[in-house]
Amino acid sequence: MKNINIKELASELNLSVSTISKALHDSHEISDKTKRLVMETAARLNYVPNPYASSLRGRKTKNIGVVIPEVADSFFSLAINGIESVAKEKGYHVLICLTHESFENEKNILKEFQGGRVDGVLMSVSGETCQSDHINDLISSGVPLIFFDRICDDVATAKITTDDFESGYKATEHLLQAGCEKIAFLSISNSLSISNKRLEGYLKAHTDYRLNVAKERIVLCTDDNAKNYAAIKALLQQSLTADGIVASVEKLTTPIYKACAELTLRIPQDVKVVCFSNLETASILNPSLTTITQPAFEMGNTAARLLFTSLEKANFDLTKESTVIPSALIIRNSTSQ
Amino acid sequence: MKNINIKELASELNLSVSTISKALHDSHEISDKTKRLVMETAARLNYVPNPYASSLRGRKTKNIGVVIPEVADSFFSLAINGIESVAKEKGYHVLICLTHESFENEKNILKEFQGGRVDGVLMSVSGETCQSDHINDLISSGVPLIFFDRICDDVATAKITTDDFESGYKATEHLLQAGCEKIAFLSISNSLSISNKRLEGYLKAHTDYRLNVAKERIVLCTDDNAKNYAAIKALLQQSLTADGIVASVEKLTTPIYKACAELTLRIPQDVKVVCFSNLETASILNPSLTTITQPAFEMGNTAARLLFTSLEKANFDLTKESTVIPSALIIRNSTSQ
Repeated sequence: MKNINIKELASELNLSVSTISKALHDSHEISDKTKRLVMETAARLNYVPNPYASSLRGRKTKNIGVVIPEVADSFFSLAINGIESVAKEKGYHVLICLTHESFENEKNILKEFQGGRVDGVLMSVSGETCQSDHINDLISSGVPLIFFDRICDDVATAKITTDDFESGYKATEHLLQAGCEKIAFLSISNSLSISNKRLEGYLKAHTDYRLNVAKERIVLCTDDNAKNYAAIKALLQQSLTADGIVASVEKLTTPIYKACAELTLRIPQDVKVVCFSNLETASILNPSLTTITQPAFEMGNTAARLLFTSLEKANFDLTKESTVIPSALIIRNSTSQ
Repeated sequence: MKNINIKELASELNLSVSTISKALHDSHEISDKTKRLVMETAARLNYVPNPYASSLRGRKTKNIGVVIPEVADSFFSLAINGIESVAKEKGYHVLICLTHESFENEKNILKEFQGGRVDGVLMSVSGETCQSDHINDLISSGVPLIFFDRICDDVATAKITTDDFESGYKATEHLLQAGCEKIAFLSISNSLSISNKRLEGYLKAHTDYRLNVAKERIVLCTDDNAKNYAAIKALLQQSLTADGIVASVEKLTTPIYKACAELTLRIPQDVKVVCFSNLETASILNPSLTTITQPAFEMGNTAARLLFTSLEKANFDLTKESTVIPSALIIRNSTSQ
């Protein structure tokens, strides 16, 4: 049996759409008799409320939510600029919420968004997130969500990512070709999609170049840069010491440079360094830093455009819209031969 | 005549506080007869609804809003950490909204907040803001607002600032003592309180050291770093050329270093540089950067603590709570003699 929409239901009963809507929402403005009539007819003719349509008409908030781990990383500040450039054009506000890499915080924020504060959400998951019920709950409640950069594989929605495996491979291959044989990989999470793909690229480059990886050179860093500094110093002092470092996140740059200075190791002569980073200061560091630079603005921009398309087109299928935008290896003095 | 509160009104009528509240809000759960009785008694006994109390009880959103120009500046990312550390303790969410230095954006965001989305607001005004009706409107609607860093002098509320005049003076004096005689000042706004106070400090140091200021060396930069790069290059090439630079905002660091490199001017031998900056990479730049480092975390933290005190204590007077937290001059190689 075909479903009918609210217009058809109104026309069937010779009532206004507004009266039907109020009756369905149990408004005190509508008499009990009319409410009963509307309910019975809705059931008989198979009226199905459309959660997206109701969000678009009834409770349009003109807000989108952006859920990210932090803003201190320039990837996220650039991605926000990409998002806001679209939101401004559409007359929307952007509400930014930070998880500080905590799964608990992330769940609380999405729960809050389920209350109808936003029309849609753009999200990069926390470093602790390894299950996705909270995300699926939000989507089921009628709030579209799109991932950018850090994703959950098992959530069926659009994912705007960069080529993390290829970038991990490229960074490592660059160091191998510059003569490094003992390359360390600094990761930031065991569960994050991006971190694992970058690590896979690092491992594959070693396989292709017939070099073994010493597992002591794969170091899990944390949110705390004082601890990271100690871990990097330990790495550079241990018997298996490294002659090259692939750092998978921007914030590790300062502890790496400081640890090398403290141990009087010269970059690039003693240790070569590549960092996944969008730092504006990369080119004026001492020495200037070779980076994998991500298309941060474009990723935010693309994710936001998709979100608005899904808000504007009722039956738009987000699950078919994932995009991979490539990163670039920018070679500077920290990897000179 | 003394006012009565909702409890006293309920006790007078031998009804529950909840019934009184529903009657006053014209709920359909309450009979017309009871509503009339409540209204008449409220008028007779001079019941005055307390907007703060009603915000705290009735429509507590458990959100606070943070309105700032951008997140790419590390001052703001650190201040946000200071704010969130308090909000988390209180069980609140923090909604961050960016003005991108636009007065129009700022007005729209505060208007949106007036709709009851947040219990209170922490704000650093945009570079364009030179009037304050939108801020006073928000406060009048019952939403407390506290400034941090960038303030409007004529709004009566708490202001958490740093010692911008003294810092401008200290930065300039440091360059004068290092032998500079032609010091440029790079400002970011003609209307911002912080920018003007830093400039006043720069001017006062010149007066105290009996040196004239050439007005061509006071350069107004913008939000666009490509334009800033061109302006800085022009400054360093002109006949009045500078041997020292006080930059009033972090984002000018990269264009200054790049312009010097392009013109083969050495820092610090040819040009000495001090920047207002909380950049984590300041110490690993080439050369390391002398900074005025602001108490960003503490300023955010202090502002947030005050906001929660005002939310928790009905008659707390925010206008008496302004605080100045001093910045520090951190001397590094960009000003070596």
